[in-house]
Amino acid sequence: MNTIIRIDMAQLKVTIENSPQDSQLLGGRGLSARILNAEVPAITHPLSHENKLVVAPGLLAGTMAPSFGRISFGAKSPLTKTVKESNAGGTVAQKLDRLGIKAIIIQGMPKENQTYIVYIDSKGAQIIKAPDLKGKMNYDLVTTLQNKYGKEIGVISIGPAGEAKMAASTIAITDQDGRPSRHAARGGLGAVMGSKGIKAIVINAKDTKAIEPIQKELFKETVKDLIETLKQDKGSQSFSKFGTPNGIKFLSQLGSMPSWNYHGGPVKGIENIYGETISEVNKSRGGRMHGCMPGCIVQCSIVFHGEDGQHLTSALEYETLAMLGTNLGITNLDAVAQMDRMCDEIGVDTIEVGSAIAQLMEAEVIEFGDDQKVIGMLKELREGSTMGKIVGQGTAFTAQFLGLDRVPVSKGQAFPAHDPRACKAVGVTYCASPMGADHTAGIDYRDSLSNEGQVKRSRDAQILNATIDSVGYCYLALPAKGQVMYEVLVKLLNARYGNNIKAEDVMNIGINTIKDELAFNHSAGWADVQNRLPGFMETEKLPPNDVVFDVQQEEIDAIFKDLG
Amino acid sequence: MNTIIRIDMAQLKVTIENSPQDSQLLGGRGLSARILNAEVPAITHPLSHENKLVVAPGLLAGTMAPSFGRISFGAKSPLTKTVKESNAGGTVAQKLDRLGIKAIIIQGMPKENQTYIVYIDSKGAQIIKAPDLKGKMNYDLVTTLQNKYGKEIGVISIGPAGEAKMAASTIAITDQDGRPSRHAARGGLGAVMGSKGIKAIVINAKDTKAIEPIQKELFKETVKDLIETLKQDKGSQSFSKFGTPNGIKFLSQLGSMPSWNYHGGPVKGIENIYGETISEVNKSRGGRMHGCMPGCIVQCSIVFHGEDGQHLTSALEYETLAMLGTNLGITNLDAVAQMDRMCDEIGVDTIEVGSAIAQLMEAEVIEFGDDQKVIGMLKELREGSTMGKIVGQGTAFTAQFLGLDRVPVSKGQAFPAHDPRACKAVGVTYCASPMGADHTAGIDYRDSLSNEGQVKRSRDAQILNATIDSVGYCYLALPAKGQVMYEVLVKLLNARYGNNIKAEDVMNIGINTIKDELAFNHSAGWADVQNRLPGFMETEKLPPNDVVFDVQQEEIDAIFKDLG
Repeated sequence: MNTIIRIDMAQLKVTIENSPQDSQLLGGRGLSARILNAEVPAITHPLSHENKLVVAPGLLAGTMAPSFGRISFGAKSPLTKTVKESNAGGTVAQKLDRLGIKAIIIQGMPKENQTYIVYIDSKGAQIIKAPDLKGKMNYDLVTTLQNKYGKEIGVISIGPAGEAKMAASTIAITDQDGRPSRHAARGGLGAVMGSKGIKAIVINAKDTKAIEPIQKELFKETVKDLIETLKQDKGSQSFSKFGTPNGIKFLSQLGSMPSWNYHGGPVKGIENIYGETISEVNKSRGGRMHGCMPGCIVQCSIVFHGEDGQHLTSALEYETLAMLGTNLGITNLDAVAQMDRMCDEIGVDTIEVGSAIAQLMEAEVIEFGDDQKVIGMLKELREGSTMGKIVGQGTAFTAQFLGLDRVPVSKGQAFPAHDPRACKAVGVTYCASPMGADHTAGIDYRDSLSNEGQVKRSRDAQILNATIDSVGYCYLALPAKGQVMYEVLVKLLNARYGNNIKAEDVMNIGINTIKDELAFNHSAGWADVQNRLPGFMETEKLPPNDVVFDVQQEEIDAIFKDLG
Repeated sequence: MNTIIRIDMAQLKVTIENSPQDSQLLGGRGLSARILNAEVPAITHPLSHENKLVVAPGLLAGTMAPSFGRISFGAKSPLTKTVKESNAGGTVAQKLDRLGIKAIIIQGMPKENQTYIVYIDSKGAQIIKAPDLKGKMNYDLVTTLQNKYGKEIGVISIGPAGEAKMAASTIAITDQDGRPSRHAARGGLGAVMGSKGIKAIVINAKDTKAIEPIQKELFKETVKDLIETLKQDKGSQSFSKFGTPNGIKFLSQLGSMPSWNYHGGPVKGIENIYGETISEVNKSRGGRMHGCMPGCIVQCSIVFHGEDGQHLTSALEYETLAMLGTNLGITNLDAVAQMDRMCDEIGVDTIEVGSAIAQLMEAEVIEFGDDQKVIGMLKELREGSTMGKIVGQGTAFTAQFLGLDRVPVSKGQAFPAHDPRACKAVGVTYCASPMGADHTAGIDYRDSLSNEGQVKRSRDAQILNATIDSVGYCYLALPAKGQVMYEVLVKLLNARYGNNIKAEDVMNIGINTIKDELAFNHSAGWADVQNRLPGFMETEKLPPNDVVFDVQQEEIDAIFKDLG
C-alpha cells in the first residue's frame, strides 16, 4: 500500500500520489498527524477550506492478522480546536489497504452547496454529485448505497449532524453486517467531512484479496501466538462474553462510571445494565455478539435486539450506557439502546451528546432519570430544532449556552465515562494527551484511586495507543500486559513489509505520532498551562471513595517534556 | 481614595481594606489587572466562584478635571477567556472616588440562587436581598432603585442578559440624566456580575464633594490648559457637534465602516445616518447632545429622540450604527436607535450582538437589510428564546451554532466597527492587545490603508489607552496629538496626590498595565501564535480600495516582546 488519493473538493478533482519511501512506518494515526502537520496551517478555522480530513488504514489493516482493521480519521477538530484522530473498526480499513491505499486526503471546499459522494475501487476514485442523499440518516443512507453499488461495499458516512457541521458529529463506518454501527466519534470530525460536502465514501474492493506478507511463516506464527495470548487473557474473555459493559458492576462500585452528571453516587437499577444482564436479555431476544471487523477474535461488539426481537442497535457500548445512562440517572436498558441507535442514525457521539444532556439536567431543563425526555431531545437533534442543534455542538457549548461553570471537558471535549477522580491515570491522559479527554488515547486502571505513578502509566498507555492506532490494532484487544504488543508488532511489521525493525522503532511510531500531534497543537496555540482538569475535579469529592483528582500538576506538565 | 471594599458573595460579607501604600499610581484598568493577577487563578472558568469582578474608578475620577470620570470593570472574560477590562462614562466613578473608594472587589458566589444588590454610601457597603428586581430591564430597574434610594444615586447594573450569564452581556452605568445608558460593553463582564448574583450596585455619595487636589493651583491651571487644547481640537469639535457618528461619511467611503457582514461595499441610504443628518433629525425632535459624565466638555453623547419627540435612547454611537446598521445592510436611523435602546435594556453589547446577527444573515436565517427581523431577534433575546440566547452568547458562538467558518473575532470577541483591512493599526490592536478585538484598546487612523508603521502606531495607542483607562480619562476626548496627555497627566497626578512623578512614570502606568494583562493571559494559556486575524481578512479584498490585512505577522508578534 503506497497510494495516496487526494480529493480536492474546490476543484472537484482526484489526484493519485505515491507516498514517500520513508513512510513505511507511517500509517493510521501517525500518518494522519504527519500529513496534518505538513499541510494544514494549525491556526486555521476547523471548518475552513484550509483544513483537511485524512482517512488512513492502519499499517497492518489488510492482512489476515486479527483485530488490526481499524480505520483512522484525522483533522483539526471543530470540538477541540487542536489536532484530533478518531478511529473505528468495521470493514473499510481492510478494503482500503487491499486496494493499496495508504491514505485519502480530502481538502478544499466545494464552491456550491452540493452533496457529493466519493466512490473508490481498484480503478481509482471519483467524485459524484448525490443531491438525493442530502439529509439522510446513516442506516437509510447505507442501504441506498448498497442497493446501488452492491452489498459488499464498505461505507464511510456522515449523518445529518455532520452535514450541519455540529461539533459532536461522527464519521460512521459499516461493520461486517453492513450496518453503519462503528463510529469515529470523538472530536467532531463528521463536521469536517460535512464542510467538504462529502456525505459518504463508498469503497468497493471486490477485486482484491488479503495482503500477502513478505515473510509468510513469521507472520502466521506471530498471529497464532497472539491469538493464543488473547484466548488466555481474562480481559479478552470477558469482553468476548459481555462486550465493553462487562465492567459496569466494578466501575459503578468504584465510582469511575459517571453518575448524576459527575456528582456521583448509586443509580437505582444499575443491575439492569450489567454486562451479564444485557447478555441474557439480548440472547433471549435473538441478539448476539460479533466482531465489528473481519477476523476479530475478541468479538466484543453487542448486536442488540429490541423487545420485538428485531435488531435495534450495534454495538451497545459501556461509554453509551454511562453517558446516556447512569450519568443522566438512567438505567433503562432499552431506552439507552434506542438512544444509541438514534445517535448512530444522526451521526453524533454518544459521549459528547450524553454529557451535553447532563448539562441540561444540571440546569433543570430536563429532570435526571427522565429517559423519555432524553429521547425527545435526540428527536430534536434529529429534526434540527434550535435546542437540538445546541446539544449537537457538544458539552462545552451547551454549558456556555446555559451559563454553567461546572463543565467536564478537556481541550473542549467531554470526558468519556471514566471519572478522573477514580481513575487517575486516565485523568492524566485527559489533561496531557494531544487528543483531549479521550480514554482511547491512554487508559490504565491499576491502583486507580492513588495519585502515585499515574503519570508514567498514562504516558506508557498513550505511547502504546498511539502506536496501535497507527498499525490499526484495536485497543480493546490489548492483552493485560499491553507492552508485549511491541514485540508482536516488530514481528508482524517485519514479516509484512520485509523490514528489519526493532522494538524501539515500533515504540517510536507512537512517540513520533505524539510529537507530531503536540507540535500541531502548539502551533495552533495550545499552551501547556491548559493541560489541567476543570476545577471541580480537584475540589468535589467523588463517592463512594471520597476521592478528588490530586495528581501533581508539575508531574503532569512534565509528561512529554523529554520529547522536546 | 484608598479604601478597597471586598464583597464576598459566598459569605455574604463585606470587608473594608486599605489599598497598599505603593498603589498610588494604580487605578482603574491598571489596578484591576494587578488585582486579577494576584487573586484569580488565570485558568479558572470565567463563571466560577474563583473569578472576581473588580470595579475601579480612575485615579482622577473624583476631581473637577473634565472627562476623567470613567469607571473600569475587570475580570476574566466569559467571552475572550482572557483578562478583560471594560470601561464607561457616567456618574459612578466620580461618586466612588469621592467616597474614598479605590476599588470594589466582588468575589465568590451565593449558595442560593438569589438576586442581590450592593448599597454603598459614606457609611460603608451592604449586601441586600432584592428578589423583586430579578429579570428587570435596565431602565425599569434604575427607576425602581431611584424611587427607593433617591434621584441622586449612581447605579451600576445588569439586564436580564447578565443574569442569564450571556457572553455578550454588559454592565450598565447611569449617566447624568440618571439613565442606564453607558455600558461597559465588551467582554461579557455582565455575566460575571450575574454569576455573583448581583443585579445592581447603588452608590449614594450625597454627603461628599469633589476631591481637593493637594496642589490646587497647578491642578486648576493644567485643567484650564487641557480645556483650551480640546476647544481648539478639530476632532473634539466634531465630536461635540455630531458625536461619534461624525465620522460615518469618511469611514464608510474608506471602507473601514463594516458593511454586509464584512463583505464590504456601499449601503443604500448611508446618508440617513451621517452625523450631520442625525444631528438635524434629532434637534428637530427636541433631542440634544450631552456629556455622559459631569464636567465633560466634549459632550459627544447623543440623547436621541424618536419620531414622537420623546427620549428613545442615549447615546447613539458610531459602533452601533455600524454593527446593527451598515454591517447588516441597514441604514434606517430610527430602527437602529430602537435596537440600541433594546440592547441597553437587555444589557447586551451592540457590537457583539450586531456581529452575531450578521452571522445569521450570512447563513440566510435573516435577510440582509431586514431591520424588522433584527428587532424581532432582539425581542427574542429580551424574552430569552433559545435562538435569542444563542445570539446573546456572541458572534463566535452563533457562528459555531450555524457551522460558519468566516468569523470576525479576535480572542473570541467580535471586531468593533473598524475593518482591520482599511485601518491596519487597529487590526494590529485586534491581534495583539490583551483585550482582543477592542478598538478602545488602541486606534490610529493615520495612513490607515498602508501596512507600514502600523505596529508602532498600535503600540503607542495601546500604551496611551492603557494609561488613560487607569486614570479614568475618556479616549474620545484625546486631542489629535494624544501623546501630549502624558505631560498633562504628570501635572494632574502630581497636583492631585502631591507627588513628584515624571512623564516616564505616567507612561509606565500603561506599560505595567499591559504587562500585567499579558501575564494573566499567558497564565490562562493564551499563546502568541493566536495573535492573528481570521484568515479571510488576509485573503478577501475589501472595497473600495481592494485592501487585505497585510501587516507582517512577525512584526505584530514582536510588538510587546521588549516588555518581557
